[in-house]
Amino acid sequence: MMEEQVRLLEGLWGDVRELSLGNRIQRLDSTPTPLQFLRDYVSPNKPCIISNAISHWPALSLWPNLSYLSSSLSDSTVSLHLTPDGRADSLVPLETPKKGETCFASAHVEHVPFPCALDLVLNSERNNVVGYLQQQNDCFREEYSVLASGCDAHIPWATEALGGCLPEAVNLWIGNHSSETSFHKDHYENLYAVVSGEKQFLLLPPTDVHRMYIQEYPAAQYSYSSGSGEFRLELEKPQRYVPWCSVNPYPPPETKENEMSKFPLYFNGPKPFHCTVKAGEILYLPSMWFHHVRQSPDDNGCTIAINYWYDMQFDIKYAYFNFLQSIHHGPPLMNYDATKFTLSDELYIDANELEAEEANQEDTKDERALIF
Amino acid sequence: MMEEQVRLLEGLWGDVRELSLGNRIQRLDSTPTPLQFLRDYVSPNKPCIISNAISHWPALSLWPNLSYLSSSLSDSTVSLHLTPDGRADSLVPLETPKKGETCFASAHVEHVPFPCALDLVLNSERNNVVGYLQQQNDCFREEYSVLASGCDAHIPWATEALGGCLPEAVNLWIGNHSSETSFHKDHYENLYAVVSGEKQFLLLPPTDVHRMYIQEYPAAQYSYSSGSGEFRLELEKPQRYVPWCSVNPYPPPETKENEMSKFPLYFNGPKPFHCTVKAGEILYLPSMWFHHVRQSPDDNGCTIAINYWYDMQFDIKYAYFNFLQSIHHGPPLMNYDATKFTLSDELYIDANELEAEEANQEDTKDERALIF
Repeated sequence: MMEEQVRLLEGLWGDVRELSLGNRIQRLDSTPTPLQFLRDYVSPNKPCIISNAISHWPALSLWPNLSYLSSSLSDSTVSLHLTPDGRADSLVPLETPKKGETCFASAHVEHVPFPCALDLVLNSERNNVVGYLQQQNDCFREEYSVLASGCDAHIPWATEALGGCLPEAVNLWIGNHSSETSFHKDHYENLYAVVSGEKQFLLLPPTDVHRMYIQEYPAAQYSYSSGSGEFRLELEKPQRYVPWCSVNPYPPPETKENEMSKFPLYFNGPKPFHCTVKAGEILYLPSMWFHHVRQSPDDNGCTIAINYWYDMQFDIKYAYFNFLQSIHHGPPLMNYDATKFTLSDELYIDANELEAEEANQEDTKDERALIF
Repeated sequence: MMEEQVRLLEGLWGDVRELSLGNRIQRLDSTPTPLQFLRDYVSPNKPCIISNAISHWPALSLWPNLSYLSSSLSDSTVSLHLTPDGRADSLVPLETPKKGETCFASAHVEHVPFPCALDLVLNSERNNVVGYLQQQNDCFREEYSVLASGCDAHIPWATEALGGCLPEAVNLWIGNHSSETSFHKDHYENLYAVVSGEKQFLLLPPTDVHRMYIQEYPAAQYSYSSGSGEFRLELEKPQRYVPWCSVNPYPPPETKENEMSKFPLYFNGPKPFHCTVKAGEILYLPSMWFHHVRQSPDDNGCTIAINYWYDMQFDIKYAYFNFLQSIHHGPPLMNYDATKFTLSDELYIDANELEAEEANQEDTKDERALIF
């Protein structure tokens, strides 16, 4: 029965790729009409990258000028996320009290004047602390309101396609090369615009939910002491559990073999979609898609992006997703063998490629292809 | 495990109703814009009825005038479907050679001059043979092309919403009160316009596929001898099997108890959506929805309708449907007990109501409510 279940899931992963997604993220040269966007991307729950969508934004020339940013925001207090390694909202082993137990670690958040915060983002390595300017609570319209004239308050063709309401939240992200967001999904239609630098996304459709090995992890919080320059990681009290994706797609060499055998549905199944979103481009990241994000800074040392979260429709697709997710997998899935899979070999994650990718993270020469 | 499977399916049936469908088919007072139609109905795979959508069609006044039809089509040869009881494409027991085996019976089809065909439709009872003018192969644009000016060649807002291509097929249906179409689904987005009389639909979303008990039945064909006035039903040779829905939602009293115990997922689960589409209205019948159709004639004794089949998008919804359908159910589903179901009682099929509905088929006084 469990083997049958795996076979059915494989069929689903293959079907959605063969019927709808293909093997790469589509790129549009200009903005779609609302109707095209809705019909070709939102309705089929299919990502795309739109070039030349924000060419008219003053932000494209203004914001990468960091002295412009600092002077504009000299009186603004912003949320700065601090972690020891750039990985916020990620799974890490606890030190105490339960040494070795994996927890879901949130960043230490400080509210500081923008110029100080930016300085810390730019000089993370010197300080042994990685700063990431972000706050996923509509921070752009709150903390960064003085920058409003630099970009559009919403993405007009997306707003019209999605029902006419303005975005539920607009968030600004200013990070450096260390900042990384682990695999997760959001209950929003996401329009993600890169203003400076590049963002690298790994994407998996909601149909692939079992490949993420979502489990409940105890929530923990970093606290940072600027005096000692050290982090402490402590379980939240009262204890709280967070369902989170277990898979790190770029495991370090020393744990790679172990990770690959722990999460075979991910590492032996179809490759995730990989794409690089450059300054001036928008990624449409459909609701419920799993995404993992890394970034490459511009010449000034930072990556600047802004994303618009629109309310999603909780329709038959969401009901199907809930149903799919409710199908639990037991030990047999752990011993998953992809050799029976029917899609062509090039769609599979290959351990050697994974190594090559790790060794050469600058390799983004053909972001139109599905590479890993 | 099988009980767990039933519980998960129940969750899906309830989810799609609670999240998206509600408990009745929405009715719009006027035509939606292409964007509204796509966003609110096609994308969420949700039916609706549109009033005042075809008020400008000359057909509304011309076609119910049967002498107009007969004279316009006096030189046209059309496809007439003949059955003993009005049920074409339905499941019936074989007489010979395998007495009692259930087969999938197709109508006897004759190609006759329209005036003769119409006469037989109108006088079915006198002749012990039920005629239904229909042919689901684009018959309107083929056999009835002289009527083209009576209606639109396509539904403009639907055409635009669905990508700009004209319908794949346009079919005309002229039947009487006996004509009935058994539960089935189509791989098309269907715009179904009633010109004269009324059509009663029972609708179930694709999520409810297990409730239809789709099985393979041997294909058989009626052949009608006008000399003897009798039908013979014979298995096709070479033998061919057709997957078809096993459920008759209106079982005759003598088999009702047996049917209800054979198909508990249907009879004990959430009520199908019931709607009456009147002359001048369009039903949007989304792709992959199961539908059962009966009709009430106008004063002239017939029901006239025309439907537009548009290509559907084979997207993530279709992949999910395929996955769902591939989950087979065994004997425990047959002993399905709905008492654990969480939706409110009024959403359930009730055997007494089923009886009342059978006794009073004219009861269409509030087609906005989900009645049975």
